Amino acid sequence: MAADAAETTDAGGDGGETWADVSPEAARRLLLAAVDAFAERGFHATTTRDIAGRAGMSPAALYIHFRTKEELLYQISRVGHERSVRILTEASEVSEDPAERLASAVRTFVRWHAERHTTARVVQYELNALSPEHHEQIVELRRRTGAVMRGILEDGVAAGRFAVPDVPGTALALLSLCIDVARWFNPDGPRSPEQIGELYADLALRMVGAH
Amino acid sequence: MAADAAETTDAGGDGGETWADVSPEAARRLLLAAVDAFAERGFHATTTRDIAGRAGMSPAALYIHFRTKEELLYQISRVGHERSVRILTEASEVSEDPAERLASAVRTFVRWHAERHTTARVVQYELNALSPEHHEQIVELRRRTGAVMRGILEDGVAAGRFAVPDVPGTALALLSLCIDVARWFNPDGPRSPEQIGELYADLALRMVGAH
Repeated sequence: MAADAAETTDAGGDGGETWADVSPEAARRLLLAAVDAFAERGFHATTTRDIAGRAGMSPAALYIHFRTKEELLYQISRVGHERSVRILTEASEVSEDPAERLASAVRTFVRWHAERHTTARVVQYELNALSPEHHEQIVELRRRTGAVMRGILEDGVAAGRFAVPDVPGTALALLSLCIDVARWFNPDGPRSPEQIGELYADLALRMVGAH
Repeated sequence: MAADAAETTDAGGDGGETWADVSPEAARRLLLAAVDAFAERGFHATTTRDIAGRAGMSPAALYIHFRTKEELLYQISRVGHERSVRILTEASEVSEDPAERLASAVRTFVRWHAERHTTARVVQYELNALSPEHHEQIVELRRRTGAVMRGILEDGVAAGRFAVPDVPGTALALLSLCIDVARWFNPDGPRSPEQIGELYADLALRMVGAH
């Protein structure tokens, strides 16, 4: 039981920080348990009974907070995407300088995907398990992420600081590079989230021909 | 039945080409069916009965060719990784010029991950479902992929053509960029595999400071 609690508290590798705003406490515990279960076995192989058990609750107690397993996935995806849009937006507003804005956005987005790799994997890989209505809401949040990155590149090009022949394609590639960190990142590997963030910020400036 | 056959024949979006060397025909059909099933529902939620049914066969007939569900996943991962190492290696040998080699490798690897996105997703996302022994074999194939990319960068640096402060990190980022195409690629989207390949080859040359 103590081991279970420690495991769920660390869901997504962020000590539960992503879910700090979720209340009540029981709902937060269920989301943390669902992230772990979906990451380990996939959405379709996970039952609400598995999730309730991981959270130390009964299936009946789960249904007070979430009507279906899909509702849990939707809340994980919504909270995860809203938070990632927010941190990307804030990171891109640190400066007026396009190069500093891009470096800050990439550094921050990479760190988020490394530190929250478990959550990020669930959010990225189980998108097709969402209901059509929920899927559309998440796609809208993803469009906002894309718009933030394109905005940084467009401002850099307009200021004569970046040379980018294909702004939408380059923005897509930059976000893809950051997001895929969640797939291969290993907390026991040789590089820390900060070090990967620094490396990728430099690569991003090269990709946009910053000068 | 006809619809099933069409669906499995198109597994991985490559018309089954990845599996052309697999024989007998029944084993190939089972691998194609397993790729589709794993991609749709995940490894853990798929049963050997599901896979046999998709291939139009009985579960007993499946066991003639594959002892376990994990054996199917292993063969998919092995064939997929061996093929991807081979195409990356061949693409990197088209020329003596480091820039041409890098552009060719990235262009080819991106196209492979776009065209075979279903197979690539299964191979990338279900790695942890492999047995420890099979996992180690696949990790070894992945090391070879990394070595090919690092070799191109090292040769470019040695020839004074690339400026790369961190060769292992940049090689990792380049491969990650190519592989993640499998996650977001949409055959109905605005960009063809060839167009993404061209864009990414240009971005790769920027990332290594080619001149």
